[in-house]
Amino acid sequence: MAAPDRYAVILAGGGGTRLWPSSRRTRPKQLLKLGGPESLLAATARRVLPIFGWARILVVTARDQEQAVRRELRELPRDNLVVEPEPRNTAGAIGIAAALAAARGGVGTRLAILPADHDIADERGFRKTVRLALEHAGGAIVTIGIRPSSPETGYGYIRLAAGRGPIVNVAAFVEKPDQRTAIRYLRSGRYVWNAGMFFLTAGRMLDEAAQHLPRLHGLMQRLAASRRAADFRRLLSRGYREVEAISIDYGVMEKADDLLVIPASFGWSDLGSWSAVAERARHLRIRDGAGNVTVGDVLLADAAENVVVADPGAPFVAVVGVRDLVVAATADGVLVIPRRRAQDVRLVVDALKAAGRRKLLD
Amino acid sequence: MAAPDRYAVILAGGGGTRLWPSSRRTRPKQLLKLGGPESLLAATARRVLPIFGWARILVVTARDQEQAVRRELRELPRDNLVVEPEPRNTAGAIGIAAALAAARGGVGTRLAILPADHDIADERGFRKTVRLALEHAGGAIVTIGIRPSSPETGYGYIRLAAGRGPIVNVAAFVEKPDQRTAIRYLRSGRYVWNAGMFFLTAGRMLDEAAQHLPRLHGLMQRLAASRRAADFRRLLSRGYREVEAISIDYGVMEKADDLLVIPASFGWSDLGSWSAVAERARHLRIRDGAGNVTVGDVLLADAAENVVVADPGAPFVAVVGVRDLVVAATADGVLVIPRRRAQDVRLVVDALKAAGRRKLLD
Repeated sequence: MAAPDRYAVILAGGGGTRLWPSSRRTRPKQLLKLGGPESLLAATARRVLPIFGWARILVVTARDQEQAVRRELRELPRDNLVVEPEPRNTAGAIGIAAALAAARGGVGTRLAILPADHDIADERGFRKTVRLALEHAGGAIVTIGIRPSSPETGYGYIRLAAGRGPIVNVAAFVEKPDQRTAIRYLRSGRYVWNAGMFFLTAGRMLDEAAQHLPRLHGLMQRLAASRRAADFRRLLSRGYREVEAISIDYGVMEKADDLLVIPASFGWSDLGSWSAVAERARHLRIRDGAGNVTVGDVLLADAAENVVVADPGAPFVAVVGVRDLVVAATADGVLVIPRRRAQDVRLVVDALKAAGRRKLLD
Repeated sequence: MAAPDRYAVILAGGGGTRLWPSSRRTRPKQLLKLGGPESLLAATARRVLPIFGWARILVVTARDQEQAVRRELRELPRDNLVVEPEPRNTAGAIGIAAALAAARGGVGTRLAILPADHDIADERGFRKTVRLALEHAGGAIVTIGIRPSSPETGYGYIRLAAGRGPIVNVAAFVEKPDQRTAIRYLRSGRYVWNAGMFFLTAGRMLDEAAQHLPRLHGLMQRLAASRRAADFRRLLSRGYREVEAISIDYGVMEKADDLLVIPASFGWSDLGSWSAVAERARHLRIRDGAGNVTVGDVLLADAAENVVVADPGAPFVAVVGVRDLVVAATADGVLVIPRRRAQDVRLVVDALKAAGRRKLLD
């Protein structure tokens, strides 16, 4: 028997305003470079290219990001981009990609589900982990858990079952903890961060949908039976509206049995705030001698440990005599906030929403 | 004998980058509103309108500011705007305005020389002082000296001669002091700030030029004899290049005898830095409950004592969790600097000059 087919499924439909003003609904984080040589999406595809090749990379995105995604991934085959007619959260996105993989390679096809907007410092270590996960994804669902380096309250955690070796059973998916709980998790050594990376066969995804998400399952069956790309698109545009809008974590993972996790450390970050962008700069080596991270047309004088970002089209940004600040500018928005409070960008986003300032969020 | 004619001469040719990015060569400070309802230039004219009327206000400006000045002062008679063919510092600007006043009203015409870009909180008190200065400007040169409220090192000072009453003799014009000297000046009570406001007759200006600035004097004589506005402009465009390029302080005041000064306090500021703009906001009553001064389309959250300015055309500016900062934005430049270091904007301007970034300075 030939080795089973393998596909990467890159989830690139997210919105996200945690990096406002740079990130927007139509210019989400995965399309930003954030100081690197390529967008996070392009980096995600390139990172797994040695494993899958372009023919075996599927990307799921939102309608209003389609053109931008095609520009970022010019080598992606046209029919490997799946455009959601409307957002249906990650379970829906994974379901339709799994159906496409099944249509092409059968239900035994193994899938690597990967978010498009994360940062990984050690790419070789990451690929090694992905290969290991794919090996074990014949029947089980495998996930990668990031060994925590700090008591983060912004991530979901995975509790490890007793066991040794590179791959262990999942005891439970647990919600974002409060600070005390996060410290306890960190000290126990039995918890890892849920990085949203899952490995399973197309058939297993069909089975899980059959059990937990019947409307998605119905659509997946019809899609998996489609013979031509045009049929796939027609079925999708007709049926996607009806599927359950739920995350893969709530919709599948928290209910599934036979889950494995590979605890790993490859310099992962979800780049969930401007302060995380500063951390990323460490491995990109774009910090100056005073610890400033600068991106774009900026000038710093007598300033230390700042993150100063001027996107293309933004005004020139000059920063003098300050430290530990984030200053981020686009053509239509400027943010000034202390690094340690970077998550409070939501105060701005909420105020803009409340004031109906859609242009500044779209 | 009829009362002598009186003219205000508003000097509106300055460049200035101390309020960068808002102030530029072609958009100097006098054209900015800085939180007020009108530009500083318009405020300067309006402030003395009850004394002079539009027919007796002369404005001297630079060629590349002519259109902007006309837009700001729509009621100014066309021929009351004197356009310098090229910059020749304040002695030249005052000289040609004095010649125009002499051509219209004779050498006995009294002039009030006023910078276009200062702020004055108590306008009635200011006008009272101007009227007093004009009364005494028949023979002497009169200046207004601002009673110092702090040991400023950024201003020139005037040492008062012994004497009492509202108007006293000038003992000397003195240079910008160092910090220790400024403290001594402040404590002595015998020094006032040189605010660049002078009151004298057109004839006295001609006499001073004859003694100290012979080339300017030659041009002034020709201009004063001109009968038509077109002649005046032609003579100016031919002869202005030749006149001495020197400030009125160095070129005349430090050498002149018979100088009087009126010590005064009417809430004066030269708005020489972004921190001075914050002070101005106090009397404009544009500060929020947390002491922030905000101008334009800005949003502050959990922020205190900041100056946040978004000029027309600038991006929206959001400031979270900081205090005592200046954040100023235009369409093409953003500045972030602590209020107490606002004068260090020159670090930015110098770097832009060195890098040949003319667009950001013009």
